[in-house]
Amino acid sequence: MQLAMIQDEIVPMDKLAPIYLDRGIFFGDGVYEVLRSYDGKIFALEEHLQRFSNSLAAIGIAEVDMNQIRWRIQRAFAAAGIANAKVYFHITRGSAPRDHICDANLKPNFFLTISELADSTNEKTKGIAVSTHPDWRWKRCDIKSLNLLPNVLARQDAARKGCAEAILVDEAGLITEGAASAFFAVFGRTLQTAPLTANVLASITRNYVVKGAQIIGLDVIESSLTPQQAIQADELFIAVTTKDIVPVVQFDGALIGDGKPGKYTRLLIQEFRSFMA
Amino acid sequence: MQLAMIQDEIVPMDKLAPIYLDRGIFFGDGVYEVLRSYDGKIFALEEHLQRFSNSLAAIGIAEVDMNQIRWRIQRAFAAAGIANAKVYFHITRGSAPRDHICDANLKPNFFLTISELADSTNEKTKGIAVSTHPDWRWKRCDIKSLNLLPNVLARQDAARKGCAEAILVDEAGLITEGAASAFFAVFGRTLQTAPLTANVLASITRNYVVKGAQIIGLDVIESSLTPQQAIQADELFIAVTTKDIVPVVQFDGALIGDGKPGKYTRLLIQEFRSFMA
Repeated sequence: MQLAMIQDEIVPMDKLAPIYLDRGIFFGDGVYEVLRSYDGKIFALEEHLQRFSNSLAAIGIAEVDMNQIRWRIQRAFAAAGIANAKVYFHITRGSAPRDHICDANLKPNFFLTISELADSTNEKTKGIAVSTHPDWRWKRCDIKSLNLLPNVLARQDAARKGCAEAILVDEAGLITEGAASAFFAVFGRTLQTAPLTANVLASITRNYVVKGAQIIGLDVIESSLTPQQAIQADELFIAVTTKDIVPVVQFDGALIGDGKPGKYTRLLIQEFRSFMA
Repeated sequence: MQLAMIQDEIVPMDKLAPIYLDRGIFFGDGVYEVLRSYDGKIFALEEHLQRFSNSLAAIGIAEVDMNQIRWRIQRAFAAAGIANAKVYFHITRGSAPRDHICDANLKPNFFLTISELADSTNEKTKGIAVSTHPDWRWKRCDIKSLNLLPNVLARQDAARKGCAEAILVDEAGLITEGAASAFFAVFGRTLQTAPLTANVLASITRNYVVKGAQIIGLDVIESSLTPQQAIQADELFIAVTTKDIVPVVQFDGALIGDGKPGKYTRLLIQEFRSFMA
């Protein structure tokens, strides 16, 4: 008899809830997005849906109706009634007995959660410390997939060092991005960040940061940094959907600038508010 | 109100079954093993348990009692009553609202399935075709983690080309291993396979293959191959727990040897039977 076991409980295979056979668990065979709302309005929904659609196409999950996804998000967001919410959602290729190859007609699984956004005022005001970690991720980080164990391990390593984010460094010694954020440096009046390659996620917040930088008159260059260069920056910050811009005041133990959030970083945080309207 | 949505159904967060918050889905934050039995006896159980224990330690999932795991496997195997069974099991770091960092005391989730092994007589007798794919996996493939999307994508690509396995080629142009198997070449009386590095899984079947090769008088060298070298081999084969040794008779469309399973490969398949006693 085919059977499953959950902790100590034996369950006949045909009585098993399909979620236990989700390819998301077996393989991380799915993609996700994180949205946030500001005062009751979801920010950059269409950009996130477009990226989600790109990720689905990149791993070959077809037949997903993006209008249905948009509608589900809006319906759940309305039902939750949380003004400043974090919206997480993923689609996996579906549920089936474990096999790398599966029926092309498998029905994808959609899952979403909405919760209150953690307040990041303190981090934004005081800045955070970050530490570097080897970039162990796969070679298609342009796809926002559920294969996030290297990100978890890097984040745990950072937490052990008292840091709020891990900055990933590839085999060439160059910073790609944070474990769950984009990474930026300011030198004089120039904003620098890594170019978008197959190993960097096309961060949506990054687009808004670049837009903000242009508005406040910073030059923007896309060129990878080494940790040694990052430590020499006048200002550092990370950008992530749930917190927009967070100043980095310590990098691998070294103070950045005077150890306080930098002038342009603070201007960019202000500027970001205008995008939320 | 915090809530979740499963397909079109809205579920209050406190009514959600914990499996939906499994870190296995959110991050692939877990490790797994696959065992098989021959005629009612599980093969190489202790080696698999040791590797499982190593994987758990490598990602920092502590407090797993390996005696309990062994007992669960044996109990489920006895209950299933399948003589030639495939036993899959994983442990994830546990269930919690999605956050890279989690409570160190989170209770790990254990899951296991037992099913009838697919018959591989045909593949073993006729051999299989394989195709190459870039090795997109993360940099710690020595850990048998649930981050398997690159393996799935490589396998799907192989299937589209009518091939049974994808052979992964790293950025240096060297073959690491199959998407779900170890890879071997025979040149004259020499068996060649990639050395065990951080980017290759310490295959247990590989150990038995090497043992068998020594018994039948082959020299064994651990040195990576390029696809061009592999095509020139006298014989090729893959090794995987569920099928032990499977001859490879076609590599990226090119016939290997005379296009039939090679002499030493067939001898090794025979030799493998003696390990099952």
